[in-house]
Amino acid sequence: MTTSESADDRVAMRLDEVDALVRRALTRHGADEPNAAAVARTITAAERDVCESHGLFRLPGYVASLKSGKVRGDARPCLSRPAPAVIGVDAGGGFAPLALAEGHEPLVALARETGIAALAIRDVYHFAALWPEVEAIAEAGLVGFACTAATPMVAPAGGTRPFYGTNPIAFGCPRRAASPMVFDQASAAMARGDVMIHARDGQPVPEGVGIGPDGEPTTDPEAVLAGAQLAFGGYKGASIAMMVEILAGAVVGEAFSFQAGERGPRDGGPPVGGEFLLAIDPGRFGHGTDWIDRAETFFQALLAQPGTRLPGARRHEVRAHSLAHGVRIRRALHETCTALANA
Amino acid sequence: MTTSESADDRVAMRLDEVDALVRRALTRHGADEPNAAAVARTITAAERDVCESHGLFRLPGYVASLKSGKVRGDARPCLSRPAPAVIGVDAGGGFAPLALAEGHEPLVALARETGIAALAIRDVYHFAALWPEVEAIAEAGLVGFACTAATPMVAPAGGTRPFYGTNPIAFGCPRRAASPMVFDQASAAMARGDVMIHARDGQPVPEGVGIGPDGEPTTDPEAVLAGAQLAFGGYKGASIAMMVEILAGAVVGEAFSFQAGERGPRDGGPPVGGEFLLAIDPGRFGHGTDWIDRAETFFQALLAQPGTRLPGARRHEVRAHSLAHGVRIRRALHETCTALANA
Repeated sequence: MTTSESADDRVAMRLDEVDALVRRALTRHGADEPNAAAVARTITAAERDVCESHGLFRLPGYVASLKSGKVRGDARPCLSRPAPAVIGVDAGGGFAPLALAEGHEPLVALARETGIAALAIRDVYHFAALWPEVEAIAEAGLVGFACTAATPMVAPAGGTRPFYGTNPIAFGCPRRAASPMVFDQASAAMARGDVMIHARDGQPVPEGVGIGPDGEPTTDPEAVLAGAQLAFGGYKGASIAMMVEILAGAVVGEAFSFQAGERGPRDGGPPVGGEFLLAIDPGRFGHGTDWIDRAETFFQALLAQPGTRLPGARRHEVRAHSLAHGVRIRRALHETCTALANA
Repeated sequence: MTTSESADDRVAMRLDEVDALVRRALTRHGADEPNAAAVARTITAAERDVCESHGLFRLPGYVASLKSGKVRGDARPCLSRPAPAVIGVDAGGGFAPLALAEGHEPLVALARETGIAALAIRDVYHFAALWPEVEAIAEAGLVGFACTAATPMVAPAGGTRPFYGTNPIAFGCPRRAASPMVFDQASAAMARGDVMIHARDGQPVPEGVGIGPDGEPTTDPEAVLAGAQLAFGGYKGASIAMMVEILAGAVVGEAFSFQAGERGPRDGGPPVGGEFLLAIDPGRFGHGTDWIDRAETFFQALLAQPGTRLPGARRHEVRAHSLAHGVRIRRALHETCTALANA
């Protein structure tokens, strides 16, 4: 997220201006109002939290996949209840944000009823971070989990060629009188968007992030993009990536990453796939309703150890600043997005 | 699992002899027949799969925690259904194997009904690997997940003192015409039992496994045992460890690792805690029942890449050998266990 540019190379925007810019660009290129509004909320939330790799940086990809006809800008998510603790969402070939927005309330309501519930989203194009949907579950007072696969980018344990997506998982837990704890991490050693940002900025990536097309370790982000990323933490991270494939692919009933790589035009936008979410209501596990207080005891004990902080803490710090003062967008990106909105 | 001893230092045993030895040792020290039989099945399965750190190596700890009175050898698991998709098991202060055995069939039946179901085991002493319970779920044709916390052994991200347990997670998926894929991995860089085995054998551990009491990196397993283990893969592995604490602690309604460390005698046996399990029936997710065939397409595509193998593959190879030819137990361990059985 760091940049070598000076502050002069940035344009100040209020968050409502970011939102309006995204909506205008998407509706100009074939998204209807509900889809454009949902994607705009997601991109604006990323800029708000200074998650640059999932903010306006993604807008050209969203637009490209509308222009190529790959993604339906007028998709309407269709909900079903294939089993008592499962909600299915057929996203109809649209972007994920509207499907997530329409699935959220039913998922939360069902988890409160059954104790644990799954949301399985199919035929969807996910091009964002996972923490927004998990944060929403945690803000509703439940424990949340989400994962999604992608196209082949990460080598399996023992292999050298791309097979898994970066396969992020996100997990969240409410806190007493504080913002929820939410982590969102790629099963890859580095998120794809961050490798792309390193390549754009000409910065080397750390050792262990990836291998080149020759299968040898490299710190050149362009070589990693042409070769394969590696899972975090060796074979254990690769196991997590495999778990994501099985949940978002086999359980949801969607493509695995290696299949998504074989489908659809290479337009710079997101691949088709599935997303798997869980919501858990610990208050329905038979041990009373004070579990958030007991969880808070855990968080406080953790934070009592010097040097520690909770995942997502930085997100909440920068969020407060952005809400008060707006955000600063790289000028070149601002120009690109403005051109898309005026095209 | 390697050893510098010659084959002369080992005693050949049939698996039924291992099972009988464990049952005799446990019943001699206060376990009743159902509990002794359940623990014996678990220990024998570990020896069968040449998972030395969870086999007879654990028997002295099981016996010690019976002798200290910490664990009830006559515990009877009590099942409940606090919510439509949740089964609770109050293990009554006993060892995990009997609680797991009694919870398995109800969990599988409920997941087939509701699509996804949780099993929450409380007041339980878990001293084994997690793959047996997940393999059982996968052999029933479902996707399975399990995790459990422990006592403080692993430093949190940014910290230097033990806070998390080694916090294993296990995940399994059935395969068409093959043994299920099951991985079982500590959130710590190395399982506690393996650090103990390195210490016993005087072998250094790899870099990144832990830090000494001074907070500095070390490869001395004794220093790691006195200091703190580290999570695998840095802060991302620590996030997995945190997720385990929330699932096995806050959701199940049991102690977090930092609290378990404050309870009970230090008798060398397992800590009290909770275990969280999931069973998922992808056939109830609204996309037909051929999901195992589609999952097999994924496994075959993975295995088509040179150098790859599935987690647990070695387990199945050595299992076939053990079933046919028995196992070879270190002589000193055999003598210790025989003495416990004849005490």
